Amino acid sequence: MDKKIFISVIGESNSSPEIYKLAEEVGAEIAKAGAVLVSGGLKGVMEASCKGAKSAGGTTIGILPGSKREEGNAYIDYPIITGVGYARNKFVVKTGHVVIAVGGHYGTLSEIAFALGYKLPVVGLKTWQMIDHYGQMVKDVHYTTTPKEAVALALKLAREARPEEPSEFKK
Amino acid sequence: MDKKIFISVIGESNSSPEIYKLAEEVGAEIAKAGAVLVSGGLKGVMEASCKGAKSAGGTTIGILPGSKREEGNAYIDYPIITGVGYARNKFVVKTGHVVIAVGGHYGTLSEIAFALGYKLPVVGLKTWQMIDHYGQMVKDVHYTTTPKEAVALALKLAREARPEEPSEFKK
Amino acid sequence: MDKKIFISVIGESNSSPEIYKLAEEVGAEIAKAGAVLVSGGLKGVMEASCKGAKSAGGTTIGILPGSKREEGNAYIDYPIITGVGYARNKFVVKTGHVVIAVGGHYGTLSEIAFALGYKLPVVGLKTWQMIDHYGQMVKDVHYTTTPKEAVALALKLAREARPEEPSEFKK
Amino acid sequence: MDKKIFISVIGESNSSPEIYKLAEEVGAEIAKAGAVLVSGGLKGVMEASCKGAKSAGGTTIGILPGSKREEGNAYIDYPIITGVGYARNKFVVKTGHVVIAVGGHYGTLSEIAFALGYKLPVVGLKTWQMIDHYGQMVKDVHYTTTPKEAVALALKLAREARPEEPSEFKK
Repeated sequence: MDKKIFISVIGESNSSPEIYKLAEEVGAEIAKAGAVLVSGGLKGVMEASCKGAKSAGGTTIGILPGSKREEGNAYIDYPIITGVGYARNKFVVKTGHVVIAVGGHYGTLSEIAFALGYKLPVVGLKTWQMIDHYGQMVKDVHYTTTPKEAVALALKLAREARPEEPSEFKK
Repeated sequence: MDKKIFISVIGESNSSPEIYKLAEEVGAEIAKAGAVLVSGGLKGVMEASCKGAKSAGGTTIGILPGSKREEGNAYIDYPIITGVGYARNKFVVKTGHVVIAVGGHYGTLSEIAFALGYKLPVVGLKTWQMIDHYGQMVKDVHYTTTPKEAVALALKLAREARPEEPSEFKK
Repeated sequence: MDKKIFISVIGESNSSPEIYKLAEEVGAEIAKAGAVLVSGGLKGVMEASCKGAKSAGGTTIGILPGSKREEGNAYIDYPIITGVGYARNKFVVKTGHVVIAVGGHYGTLSEIAFALGYKLPVVGLKTWQMIDHYGQMVKDVHYTTTPKEAVALALKLAREARPEEPSEFKK
Repeated sequence: MDKKIFISVIGESNSSPEIYKLAEEVGAEIAKAGAVLVSGGLKGVMEASCKGAKSAGGTTIGILPGSKREEGNAYIDYPIITGVGYARNKFVVKTGHVVIAVGGHYGTLSEIAFALGYKLPVVGLKTWQMIDHYGQMVKDVHYTTTPKEAVALALKLAREARPEEPSEFKK
């Protein structure tokens, strides 16, 4: 039953109009591809991506940090209530087959770090860049420049990450 | 968007055929009522309730304790991957508007305790009974004797628990 | 270096004077035995046991549910700040070699359930009794009637639980 | 009772000899200042800092990601067993008044992000640098070049972060 692709969209809760618009387009592309959108369920990029997904008939999961269903944004189909604060960032990334980072403040940075640590593929769209303590720029993030490109690459990476199921993947 | 009722079904992962059958019926009743079934996503009561829900066209969420999608049972639409072991029991109960306990071993007992602690309504079906340190039997669990009765009561309690939204509730 | 015995004391945050006194004596006995007291760090039994331990020169750890150091009681040497609410109950029991339950409300019930699920030895002192869904009283809790008896038994069980290190145990 | 300063030392579990040595010196400096060292409890920087602290008569706490006491390094006085994987990174940073990052891989990056998100002061020693999505280098990390400098600055920041207790701070 679990042949759907889950894509986690991460990004700041307090986003500029430009970033909000990018996230909305990312959500819409995810929905058009038949993938499920996972997010942290709050405002900003989380809201925008869920809004975009719903506008295109998609399905959205919001993994909330707090203890109240009401803190979720208005575009979440399935709110998951954790009450563990930002420890939930781990669940947001783990629940996706792939992660797309759009913009992002420190919470997003922690999620990128978790995803890379768990060896989940990470696609970036106007997001963090990191320089390690040897002075090397991190190359594990797949940077893209448009929502379409980001989602297309995320889908490709999600499929590659599941070599055991290639023939079954459809939606 | 979040007007759906979420019902968490908790119970042992290693269940007798009798308990398995009860859980399957509970799942089917939940689906028929248009509510979303939340569970811990593993075998036994968790599997049975998801199976019942899917057989009746319902929707299922499995909040997994481990780090792998594959540990979820075959009847989960939306697996949530936490990797926090039984700390996830908190999220299983919090994500429901109401909890139904069917059978159950120690994990279930912890979930009943969490639900009562968070003042979530708990419906019991052949499950734990507890005697506090004053020698008083706990009266906060609503014991029932059939799946139909359990789900009907759970729906009633879920609606009562949301007095702010009575006119909006439909499904 | 880790040859010390850790004993987790669990119990209600809002306790009667009788339970408070029992918990204080439990804490003092733990300290006299040279074991480290682990608790959830709040008031009631948690405070009383830490207070008793400090009065006897012991060491106390408080694993706090919230995000603020200040919520810890006044008798904690080492506050651990989790910010995950009652999901921290898992850590409180896992951090001990053995658990002593004194009195207790629903949080304590969840901790007893966690401890039994993780097969940690549990000693009870005026605490919960549980009847499973077959109608059998749970026999895995070692009920005692005095603080001295509870701590003596806990120490014995902690040592037995570590058969690999018997000759090294001293303090 | 809680007047001690807690300093969280974060860094990679698989460290070069150079980084290991820096972390050991950081731990020793922390111990000499009478502060308590908090770490994630594993190898590499975590082990080195604990080893350094113990060599100078200090006290060490290890907040372990796994479920077994034995996974902790040999220099931990107080192992905290969480069993939540890298979700425990949140507790490692929150338990400190201040964080010192030495070297570090992705886990450390997530901890720096958490600390900055929680507005905890972060001191860096040969560690990550981050560029936000506006192209700005993050300036919230206080970069230093020697263990002595790092610990001296951490102590200063820890004291400043507690303006409510200035006169009471001693050790």
